[in-house]
Amino acid sequence: MNNKAIGVFDSGIGGLTVYKAIKEKLPGEKVVYLGDTARLPYGSKSAETIIHFSVDNAAFLLTKDIKIIVVACNSASSHAIPHLQDKFDKIPVLGVIEPGAEAAVENSRGKIGVIGTTATIMSRAYERAILERKPDARIIAKDCPLFVPLVEEGWANHRVTKIAAEEYLLPLKEEGIDSLVLGCTHYPVLKHVISGVLGDNIRLIDSAETTARKVYTILKPLGWLSQINNGREDEFYVTDFPDRFKKVGEIFLERKIEKVTTVDVCTMVKI
Amino acid sequence: MNNKAIGVFDSGIGGLTVYKAIKEKLPGEKVVYLGDTARLPYGSKSAETIIHFSVDNAAFLLTKDIKIIVVACNSASSHAIPHLQDKFDKIPVLGVIEPGAEAAVENSRGKIGVIGTTATIMSRAYERAILERKPDARIIAKDCPLFVPLVEEGWANHRVTKIAAEEYLLPLKEEGIDSLVLGCTHYPVLKHVISGVLGDNIRLIDSAETTARKVYTILKPLGWLSQINNGREDEFYVTDFPDRFKKVGEIFLERKIEKVTTVDVCTMVKI
Repeated sequence: MNNKAIGVFDSGIGGLTVYKAIKEKLPGEKVVYLGDTARLPYGSKSAETIIHFSVDNAAFLLTKDIKIIVVACNSASSHAIPHLQDKFDKIPVLGVIEPGAEAAVENSRGKIGVIGTTATIMSRAYERAILERKPDARIIAKDCPLFVPLVEEGWANHRVTKIAAEEYLLPLKEEGIDSLVLGCTHYPVLKHVISGVLGDNIRLIDSAETTARKVYTILKPLGWLSQINNGREDEFYVTDFPDRFKKVGEIFLERKIEKVTTVDVCTMVKI
Repeated sequence: MNNKAIGVFDSGIGGLTVYKAIKEKLPGEKVVYLGDTARLPYGSKSAETIIHFSVDNAAFLLTKDIKIIVVACNSASSHAIPHLQDKFDKIPVLGVIEPGAEAAVENSRGKIGVIGTTATIMSRAYERAILERKPDARIIAKDCPLFVPLVEEGWANHRVTKIAAEEYLLPLKEEGIDSLVLGCTHYPVLKHVISGVLGDNIRLIDSAETTARKVYTILKPLGWLSQINNGREDEFYVTDFPDRFKKVGEIFLERKIEKVTTVDVCTMVKI
């Protein structure tokens, strides 16, 4: 038994999909969430910088009495997991790539598409994780740098987004993929546009739920699942825009968020 | 006479337009340039965070023996100038807004459009600066959050960019503006697309050159112009991606950049 919290970080708000899936799978657990909204996006930054920011974020979460670190950001998961596991070796560190790869190979005949930020695609982390599980898989990967800004501009249903999606995705369709990993927390918002381009026969894979399952399968054998089932408040921290996080987060989670606290981006102390 | 350097910072590489204009106007001056490539973009961040980052950047430049701080980033200029002037009161601090506003009113009949990042437009800094100079001006301002990602994706000539430009700019054309301030260092790259939408009768204003002129008019009466005319090497610092900065910067400046040094984003010490 371990009643400490589950720590989750993301570059911003998108990681709330993972937060939500964890709360659904493990409603008795307390979660401490950090969104590094001052330094986002991570997906256009270098491996070194993403590792730097990820270490800052994990170190902050460690001050909050947590028992596991879940990296909800694909770009951070792609680059920083070994470094975080090395540096914070007292507790498990889990990213979204491995669970995403597991979900991808589950029902695939072998041709798998992966889309994500430039940092995620350049890392080839999904490719490695998929090939470990299915050595004969063929992976077609494509970065889609405009998808995040298009979602953030509120243009998910705009014709510009459809044109961009065609440009990014038609080559993957022509390759005959049967599954597509949505390797960025923003992309599920574009599911209908992506399906519109790819048709209904290509499975879209979003790793939030499989990540939540993985948290369970890590904590369970350690005997670290929480035994407290009454309402401990989750904690939400950001490095910028607490009000926007609260507002968008509430729409996202379909419930009220009591408090969002801003922490200094470099020293990670409350401001 | 003051042979110290001119310090210039930007959120990234776009500020090299200002650097280039300064070097053309004042070839005898040494410039120290900092691009905060690890934390860009600034244009989608809050005033507090932009001020925080700007203070970090200015403090770093101050360690490099400079005589003036030039803020080449519109978002930082919009929010941080008074704070920087207050905090670093031994030397002049100049942003791009005032010079841009001066250029805008120079030949305008009075209806002026301003485009920029969300942070720049929300600050209303251009509006204030224009109205100070021309109280009867009518200003129509619009943020264009997709322009920077579209330029960075290399889609300046893509039909998607034309559609986005129409959506952002046609309302300004319908208002009858005679001038448009390009209030972001990335936007000059889209000049042809913007002219295509607005027609040839609307002047496009880019503040790099007027900012360089302003540097001269500040330093000259102080007797702070440099008297050394031989080749002192300029210095370039970034917080991420030195190689990319060097490569793109060389295309930008049409000359070789000898060295780009990476500094730590929080402590701003060399790494």
